[in-house]
Amino acid sequence: MQTILIIGAGKSSSYLIDFLLESAGPKNRKVIVADMSEKMAAEKVKSNPNATAVAIDIDNSEERISLIQKSDIVVSMLPASLHPIIAKDCLTFGKHFFTASYESEDLRKLANEVKVKNLLFLNECGLDPGIDHMSAMKIITEEKAKGHEIISFKSFCGGVLAPESEDNPWKYKFTWNPRNVVLAGQGVSRYFQAGQIKCIPYHKLFERLDKVSFSQAGEFDGYANRDSLKYRSIYGLDNIPTILRGTLRRSGFCQAWNVLVQLGMTDDSFQMDFPKGVSYRSFLNSFLPFHPSKIVEEKLQEYLPKINQDTLSKIEWLGLFSEKPIPYAIGSPAAILQKILEEKWQLGPKDKDMVVLQHQFEVKGAFGVKEIISSLVCKGENQEYTAMSKTVGLPLAIAVDIFLDGKIKSRGLQIPVHKEFFEPILGALEKKGIVFEENEKLEIH
Amino acid sequence: MQTILIIGAGKSSSYLIDFLLESAGPKNRKVIVADMSEKMAAEKVKSNPNATAVAIDIDNSEERISLIQKSDIVVSMLPASLHPIIAKDCLTFGKHFFTASYESEDLRKLANEVKVKNLLFLNECGLDPGIDHMSAMKIITEEKAKGHEIISFKSFCGGVLAPESEDNPWKYKFTWNPRNVVLAGQGVSRYFQAGQIKCIPYHKLFERLDKVSFSQAGEFDGYANRDSLKYRSIYGLDNIPTILRGTLRRSGFCQAWNVLVQLGMTDDSFQMDFPKGVSYRSFLNSFLPFHPSKIVEEKLQEYLPKINQDTLSKIEWLGLFSEKPIPYAIGSPAAILQKILEEKWQLGPKDKDMVVLQHQFEVKGAFGVKEIISSLVCKGENQEYTAMSKTVGLPLAIAVDIFLDGKIKSRGLQIPVHKEFFEPILGALEKKGIVFEENEKLEIH
Repeated sequence: MQTILIIGAGKSSSYLIDFLLESAGPKNRKVIVADMSEKMAAEKVKSNPNATAVAIDIDNSEERISLIQKSDIVVSMLPASLHPIIAKDCLTFGKHFFTASYESEDLRKLANEVKVKNLLFLNECGLDPGIDHMSAMKIITEEKAKGHEIISFKSFCGGVLAPESEDNPWKYKFTWNPRNVVLAGQGVSRYFQAGQIKCIPYHKLFERLDKVSFSQAGEFDGYANRDSLKYRSIYGLDNIPTILRGTLRRSGFCQAWNVLVQLGMTDDSFQMDFPKGVSYRSFLNSFLPFHPSKIVEEKLQEYLPKINQDTLSKIEWLGLFSEKPIPYAIGSPAAILQKILEEKWQLGPKDKDMVVLQHQFEVKGAFGVKEIISSLVCKGENQEYTAMSKTVGLPLAIAVDIFLDGKIKSRGLQIPVHKEFFEPILGALEKKGIVFEENEKLEIH
Repeated sequence: MQTILIIGAGKSSSYLIDFLLESAGPKNRKVIVADMSEKMAAEKVKSNPNATAVAIDIDNSEERISLIQKSDIVVSMLPASLHPIIAKDCLTFGKHFFTASYESEDLRKLANEVKVKNLLFLNECGLDPGIDHMSAMKIITEEKAKGHEIISFKSFCGGVLAPESEDNPWKYKFTWNPRNVVLAGQGVSRYFQAGQIKCIPYHKLFERLDKVSFSQAGEFDGYANRDSLKYRSIYGLDNIPTILRGTLRRSGFCQAWNVLVQLGMTDDSFQMDFPKGVSYRSFLNSFLPFHPSKIVEEKLQEYLPKINQDTLSKIEWLGLFSEKPIPYAIGSPAAILQKILEEKWQLGPKDKDMVVLQHQFEVKGAFGVKEIISSLVCKGENQEYTAMSKTVGLPLAIAVDIFLDGKIKSRGLQIPVHKEFFEPILGALEKKGIVFEENEKLEIH
């Protein structure tokens, strides 16, 4: 009997746990769901006879190790910073280790040992990273097999709201970690275009946008997502002249978000210490130049003259001009902003989220140059069964399933860019309704 | 016989060493000058019979300790990051320790022990920090003694070129650590104005300028310098509504520097890896958006539409539009930019630098509100005897001198904000020609 240990039973684990519970009986497997909150784990496990819910304190190594020793494979849905702790235990006790997070430097340090012990440590098997890798590699592999050359690859992904839930001026609510959303894009983003490296500092990021359009979901803006350069080697496209990975937001979002960036309100490098009861308006004013008589609204318009009426209404809707006290007065600007946004951008019980992903290829062959657009639109069901949880959890669950079925021979530290992973996983995702729409057209120059 | 150990014999130690050598004979003191380069130390010591030049390898603890054990007081002119190593040795062997650098967290951790051992660890006794503290505290102390209230305090300081050496369009050359100049202002700067906290993110810093004018030196632009808030408690001005510390550059400099900031060229967070022979023009182009036909000059104007002709001529003078290869192709944008600037902004043998410092006070009393402007302009003699070296080295040398004369009773971790320091040091600086010009005028409202 094979035992799967899933650590972390939050919202993002809903689909993952359901999928693995469903096949646990038929395939004679045992599932242990561990969470800080035993209640939350129990809610996910329901009354499945093949599953147990347990409480776990990650810092208690005895507790942690005893659970890991009982299992054959460990899936970590914890925050990425905690993965190395679990990964090291898995290495010590010879257990396979799967996550949906980016492969980290800490994990890379274990790579040799993982291989020597004949274990599989699979990371980046969620949505982004995950489905993006797999769906891109499917097309890249197919085109290369036909002798074609990929000359441009842009890939955009976003966790947004389903159109029917876009009921605020930002057309956005938090469907994933709020802190990551507030800090997104800090540093310098870089990519290749027509053989030239392109660098975008944070304060220019939300002004340099690509329009990205979906037949089923409308128009979005894409901004460059950190370091796109490394994907040349990951995808075997070492000499590709154009490669860009980007993040999608509903049109108009980035322009308004840019106001907060320009003000310095997303900075996380120092602590503000406002007196109790300080207003939203004073918080905003602290980022504006002093003037003896001009009001905050005037100063904002003069400081950031590109602000249009649509953007201004988004800023106003956040309450930033109001005399109300801010919900949280001591912390970095980013931490204070996050609390403000959490009150405004909370997903309601009936809200549906949506995941949008689009690959844009330019491919050269005897025919000339063709464009391949491959798009995924996936809507969530409700606040609990979100599109984000589905697209992050299912690829990971499927990977666990086919691995335990003996269909994966790879060992060592891996991400799912090889056929052995992406073919069966994309196939199984299709059965769950996660289907890419692919369009090809010849480019006329 | 008292022994002074000076570690670091670079350009910035010229005046410091000369001052202490001059009184060494008459006051029966011995001076040891230690540097990585024994040659450089020997050049500074000349043939003074009371002084020795020695080579020191800071990483060699035996060598370091043996020198420290021979001395009564240690002056570190090393880069600030190396101070804690020396400070800890001084604590162990019961030696006094003086620097011109900011008091660091590492030093603060030693504060109790320093006090217990009855030692004096004096930091921030150079120019900025140093002369700025002392000259400000003199006025603050005097005004408070008269029962007046300081309601506004702005203080600006800069290391620039003497007007006669301003022979390039930037009117600037490196007179101090180039890396610090390139990275200056990163993070968020903050200050108080009219009781309101004001935060300026880096990408807005060089646009929010104060005009600062000197009767003997002309017009400068001042930009806010990091965290001004902490100076309220340091200067005993806890409830002051307006407090700002700023850095001075010749008018027009900040506007042009802002172009480099806006482009992202001062970023130090990631490595660029250009092929050998890549041009200045390609380096610049990597920070500009892609366009299939527009040239670099056009793209720059469109990307940063506020650029005027004067700014453009500064950028052009740096060679950034040229097809020449850049001097250094692998490193962070800031590191590459630094190499480019080092070739253009090198102080020539006949160049004179200049230090400008201005305090602007608003003081309330029975008379109403008066303004006190206290200004220092100090010109260097040549490439070796710079104003920077004079204004950094002399206060520190004087502090050592009066301390060894037994005129300083304070012990523990100190900065020179108390009368015991600033009165004798400012007095001695006047004799060396470092004199503030003070103007008072009643404000008519």
